[in-house]
Amino acid sequence: MTTETKFSVALFGAGRIGHVHAKNIADHQLTQLKYVIDPNQTAAQQLARTYGAQVVTEEKALEDATVDAIVVASATPTHADLLERGLLANKAVFCEKPIDLSISRVNDCLSAVLGASAPLFLGFNRRFDPAVAEMKRRITAGEIGDLELVTVVSKDPGALPIEYLKVSGGMFRDMTIHDFDMARFILGEEIVSVTAMASTLTDESIMKIGDIDTAVVTMQTATGRIAVITNSRRASFGYDQRVEAHGSGGTLRTENVAISNLVQETEAGVRREKPQFFFLDRYQQSYRNEWDHFVRVLAGQENPSPTGEDGRRALLLAEAAYASWKSNKVAYVDYELEAAQ
Amino acid sequence: MTTETKFSVALFGAGRIGHVHAKNIADHQLTQLKYVIDPNQTAAQQLARTYGAQVVTEEKALEDATVDAIVVASATPTHADLLERGLLANKAVFCEKPIDLSISRVNDCLSAVLGASAPLFLGFNRRFDPAVAEMKRRITAGEIGDLELVTVVSKDPGALPIEYLKVSGGMFRDMTIHDFDMARFILGEEIVSVTAMASTLTDESIMKIGDIDTAVVTMQTATGRIAVITNSRRASFGYDQRVEAHGSGGTLRTENVAISNLVQETEAGVRREKPQFFFLDRYQQSYRNEWDHFVRVLAGQENPSPTGEDGRRALLLAEAAYASWKSNKVAYVDYELEAAQ
Amino acid sequence: MTTETKFSVALFGAGRIGHVHAKNIADHQLTQLKYVIDPNQTAAQQLARTYGAQVVTEEKALEDATVDAIVVASATPTHADLLERGLLANKAVFCEKPIDLSISRVNDCLSAVLGASAPLFLGFNRRFDPAVAEMKRRITAGEIGDLELVTVVSKDPGALPIEYLKVSGGMFRDMTIHDFDMARFILGEEIVSVTAMASTLTDESIMKIGDIDTAVVTMQTATGRIAVITNSRRASFGYDQRVEAHGSGGTLRTENVAISNLVQETEAGVRREKPQFFFLDRYQQSYRNEWDHFVRVLAGQENPSPTGEDGRRALLLAEAAYASWKSNKVAYVDYELEAAQ
Amino acid sequence: MTTETKFSVALFGAGRIGHVHAKNIADHQLTQLKYVIDPNQTAAQQLARTYGAQVVTEEKALEDATVDAIVVASATPTHADLLERGLLANKAVFCEKPIDLSISRVNDCLSAVLGASAPLFLGFNRRFDPAVAEMKRRITAGEIGDLELVTVVSKDPGALPIEYLKVSGGMFRDMTIHDFDMARFILGEEIVSVTAMASTLTDESIMKIGDIDTAVVTMQTATGRIAVITNSRRASFGYDQRVEAHGSGGTLRTENVAISNLVQETEAGVRREKPQFFFLDRYQQSYRNEWDHFVRVLAGQENPSPTGEDGRRALLLAEAAYASWKSNKVAYVDYELEAAQ
Repeated sequence: MTTETKFSVALFGAGRIGHVHAKNIADHQLTQLKYVIDPNQTAAQQLARTYGAQVVTEEKALEDATVDAIVVASATPTHADLLERGLLANKAVFCEKPIDLSISRVNDCLSAVLGASAPLFLGFNRRFDPAVAEMKRRITAGEIGDLELVTVVSKDPGALPIEYLKVSGGMFRDMTIHDFDMARFILGEEIVSVTAMASTLTDESIMKIGDIDTAVVTMQTATGRIAVITNSRRASFGYDQRVEAHGSGGTLRTENVAISNLVQETEAGVRREKPQFFFLDRYQQSYRNEWDHFVRVLAGQENPSPTGEDGRRALLLAEAAYASWKSNKVAYVDYELEAAQ
Repeated sequence: MTTETKFSVALFGAGRIGHVHAKNIADHQLTQLKYVIDPNQTAAQQLARTYGAQVVTEEKALEDATVDAIVVASATPTHADLLERGLLANKAVFCEKPIDLSISRVNDCLSAVLGASAPLFLGFNRRFDPAVAEMKRRITAGEIGDLELVTVVSKDPGALPIEYLKVSGGMFRDMTIHDFDMARFILGEEIVSVTAMASTLTDESIMKIGDIDTAVVTMQTATGRIAVITNSRRASFGYDQRVEAHGSGGTLRTENVAISNLVQETEAGVRREKPQFFFLDRYQQSYRNEWDHFVRVLAGQENPSPTGEDGRRALLLAEAAYASWKSNKVAYVDYELEAAQ
Repeated sequence: MTTETKFSVALFGAGRIGHVHAKNIADHQLTQLKYVIDPNQTAAQQLARTYGAQVVTEEKALEDATVDAIVVASATPTHADLLERGLLANKAVFCEKPIDLSISRVNDCLSAVLGASAPLFLGFNRRFDPAVAEMKRRITAGEIGDLELVTVVSKDPGALPIEYLKVSGGMFRDMTIHDFDMARFILGEEIVSVTAMASTLTDESIMKIGDIDTAVVTMQTATGRIAVITNSRRASFGYDQRVEAHGSGGTLRTENVAISNLVQETEAGVRREKPQFFFLDRYQQSYRNEWDHFVRVLAGQENPSPTGEDGRRALLLAEAAYASWKSNKVAYVDYELEAAQ
Repeated sequence: MTTETKFSVALFGAGRIGHVHAKNIADHQLTQLKYVIDPNQTAAQQLARTYGAQVVTEEKALEDATVDAIVVASATPTHADLLERGLLANKAVFCEKPIDLSISRVNDCLSAVLGASAPLFLGFNRRFDPAVAEMKRRITAGEIGDLELVTVVSKDPGALPIEYLKVSGGMFRDMTIHDFDMARFILGEEIVSVTAMASTLTDESIMKIGDIDTAVVTMQTATGRIAVITNSRRASFGYDQRVEAHGSGGTLRTENVAISNLVQETEAGVRREKPQFFFLDRYQQSYRNEWDHFVRVLAGQENPSPTGEDGRRALLLAEAAYASWKSNKVAYVDYELEAAQ
């Protein structure tokens, strides 16, 4: 019988998304969950027990030389700090988005780890959706010729609690951030200018905290490619997540994933099932594929993608969207790390 | 046996779109094609003979008191003049879009006919597409709650001859004009601000004449509703024409109409037929329904819709789109007829 | 100006299907409707007037040497007689299905016209549906390899009046006849054996007249290809008409044609429009394409297909289905014209 | 901290399907995999290690009073014996289909365990497909009125090894058995008569072993409901598994599940992804739901369904299909357990 070598992983955060990663770590043949760290001891214990892991302190996890990688799935304000400490401790880092809601904190953080030799992966999981990944592969293979237009439709299934929204950083930083990354990923060329129109239509309490819930953001690259994002905080029928790429030779688009493929035909019409409602159901496979990629990064077979820099650039686009929205003008994006500091 | 009374129609223009209207006039139980007028005598004769009509001069047609209605399907520069003369001769006017490519000419024209008692209908035929008409009916009936976002995708199946484009007035006035009308129709509330991003990506010769071929236009109403139009002059796979309305209670969207409902499943994938390629095929039913509406206008059963004023407002949106594109700022729209003069 | 030569057509039958053919005859550049013949003089006059035709007697129409073709769209019991007289008068014959409900009458009729030089076309219009015609073209081109299984789903949108059903010849002869022809057309190989299971489920009055309303018929060719027909007299949601061909290299299938391509997504699900309900709407294009084919037959450019013999063979399959259903055994089909007499 | 009580499970069979069940057992909060039994010791050890189970002998597993349930996922010839021994040892039994390929052995087996108090579940997993389960729920709820016609399309993605086919019991017993169960499940009324037409078209070697690969089976219930199964051993494009229920008030149907929801539109047509190819991918969720049901059976919350008797009846339908095919007659089914012995 052969000895199996597995990468040892410490997981920070035993909440909803922590559970997703814990299961994927345990299910993967090449990784094992060694430590769970969470200020909520009960949650940490419960998750650790399910997968045969130990509950330890942050310090213990980061000092343990046998830990190969850390997964940062804790509260947003802790991300940048853990990311820095993990990389400086020479551990591969899988960090949930965002690095931070403040662009200056993100700039500082990424400057601090510029020389780190361990890899940093940022969890924009939607790139790993099978349909999106295959779309990107076909665009790269030239199957729709020269890319010209990218359309991202992204609507949440329903209003989030106002307490969550208050600390979310605002819709562009909290929700559209995924779509900015998607636009960058599909375009394959850097965005130079951004315009945004936004409204608050779904809930008066969102207006009271100065946030928005409905928006269209349009972006352009240096060669004139255009991307457009359509957002709403509330699609009453389910999670509405579609991407469309239009090129000189055709288009590629993803459709929503239905709860099941049942069709009912009656006098009332032809009724199909609604899209999946909950993002953890909808992107279950994406989270799994994302972990597969990270394991190949650990094995030295692939470079991490998206990286921390991708996270920073998506946040810069969110900043530009706010700037355009507030000034009623096109906003231009400067990606220089120093310039931004 | 009863005597059938039919409305007598004079058709200006024996070109492609003239043929469409001639057939619909002839097919309708309550209308007959009496006159065909076209500087190209051969074309006029051929079309007239097919439907038992006569070829006459403009003057003859406009002076004949038995003519109930005129259809203006001639070259664009003649529209405003014929529209004016027709209404002043007390004939109902069915005018193909646009009234004119110049907003000042349109303003003058509509000012001149302000007191006319005969009805004026403007041929934005897409409002009469069965799916679009039913979408509008359901929105009005409240089936998707409060409307929040309207998305119009509109892509031509292929590049038009550069000679056509040179005199087209530019993409926003020639092509997007349909989408501006669609956005206004579906929104049901006036647009107050417009932003546009545009590029020339499909053909260098379009760049040489200073025109664009790819654009995203975003618009907002006073209550914050947002509409977005995505345009390309070239969708290699067919005519791409979709509308989507998102409301507090759900969405309504139209899908492209395929050549046929044949599906082929092989190792290469599941292949369906392409969308219909040619706008006269795609909107055949719309032209028919549009004529049905115009006959009900003639019979005093309905008011014309869209009207000349709808045509003017769509053109104002095109002007605003150009203003935004050139200034990199949001452009605000002023609909006052006097103010615009 | 050139002289247009058009084929002169006499139309027998001014009912519902007569109207369809009259319009297609008039719309076609190469045909003109000369005569309308119908025992109902009012119906005949009305139809004739619409298209500038004359109402005449059967004799007049058949004796007029300038008549190139007759269309038999009269009551079923008159078909065989008119078909015979037309062909013997050397006129091309377009005959609506069926030639007759009695196989012996069909045999006699086709024997009587065996030597006729004028072409005989039988109106199984579904072969001319764009999706079906393209399916056949691709099968013939080998796009799904060797054909193995053909599935025909055919359901009427709703119960027909019992008075109609009483004289219909029974479901297999009246309704399934179309599907037998479809199975033969798609298979491209003669059927040798038939089994049928049938029930009366939709309406007790159908049971009282000894007819059926629900059935599955399975057929096999000499090389083992299998075709299966699924029938119901009542699909509450619309006209359900699908064909599927399975081969060694893949499948081809047609889907129902929806009233429009509107989609509504709400908490209640994703609702699409129902299939078209009425066969004259659903098969409008098929009737048009069928007439185009018949004109090419008149012009000597194509051989008629389907022919009278195709009509006879479809009826033989209906006879076999009855035989199998009544005997609870496989029924074998003998196509010999003499043998059948 | 609370003590978790989990049901202890012994798994017979460490092959492909054994792996599926092992994972579901381990993933479920209320079950744990205690023992793995397989003549292939390496396979048994590997599977056991993954989930922290032990490899033991059949005897050990069946004698251990702490084992609550056994899963029979071993080679087909061992099923009946293990099922008997398990039930007689008072363990709940989850048995993969079939109980046996011989109807007399099945009869003997079920007779032997008639008095057993432990529950017996037979793994017709397709009943647990989310779309199928929801279809059944809606039929029961009356959403399509009185059921009239059931259509099952079932095609394997590709030829199986001839060595497998030789011992498979023949297509009706090996593959169609799932469809017989599906027909019974959806019909909700016992089938009384069966006709079958079959061919060997995909592979000559199948003909040599006397088996078939293409068939249509039609069945009828006492009240006249009809079900039809269409089978092929080879759908080149993927796993083709569809069910359709037609009732007086409408239809319900399931569509194939695509690999992803990516759509590509080019001049070559509109291309969607193929159906999932491998049954373990396609029915992953069904296996999971099936296990959830079995756990509720263990907890005394539900009765097992399908049962061993359902397995016997599906096999009786396979026997009837062979009888009909060989005799060219309708075959009638007698479900009496004594009569069949």
